[in-house]
Amino acid sequence: MTTLAQQHCEACTPGTPPLQPSAVEELRGELSAEWDVDGTSSLHRRMRYKDFAGAFAAATHVALIAEAEAHHPDLTVGWGRLHIKLTTHAAGGLTRNDFIMAARIDAALG
Amino acid sequence: MTTLAQQHCEACTPGTPPLQPSAVEELRGELSAEWDVDGTSSLHRRMRYKDFAGAFAAATHVALIAEAEAHHPDLTVGWGRLHIKLTTHAAGGLTRNDFIMAARIDAALG
Repeated sequence: MTTLAQQHCEACTPGTPPLQPSAVEELRGELSAEWDVDGTSSLHRRMRYKDFAGAFAAATHVALIAEAEAHHPDLTVGWGRLHIKLTTHAAGGLTRNDFIMAARIDAALG
Repeated sequence: MTTLAQQHCEACTPGTPPLQPSAVEELRGELSAEWDVDGTSSLHRRMRYKDFAGAFAAATHVALIAEAEAHHPDLTVGWGRLHIKLTTHAAGGLTRNDFIMAARIDAALG
């Protein structure tokens, strides 16, 4: 079985449906406990760092993964903190791509 | 006269008072028209870019200025957009440091 973190995001087109709650629940089980799920709408992970540079370094790591996968989260960096929000705008909610990104972020940031 | 963008942020301690509205108004005049002022609380600039990499590159430029000045904004990057929020937590509102940062960001990003 290929884990989510080994999979790649696939191009999605406007009209792609968001995942059903049951699929969200199943994929959620493959992520770290650090992720909060907002219904079938978005995934959130909030991380703490010892300073601004630590938080921005982590954001940069996520940005590089996002470019490689062509699937881009919203990243908010403040002093000692990083907030990652994942959703698929073309679907108006969560798709498998968001969970692949989340799993890749878990693998990268721990 | 030394412009704001040539000045450096000064260390501020808890209890530093935020600026009065008249001072905010005066310093506002030295910034580009791109900044929105939320009372005496915070400064906001929202910028558009052609893609995620462009927005993240601009955020990185701001992050480097923030480290040099030891005064750190909140930065939110999404696909094609960057939101910069400046405030001084130790003062519970805007200080001269926020305007110095804003002027330096104007000088860097245009």
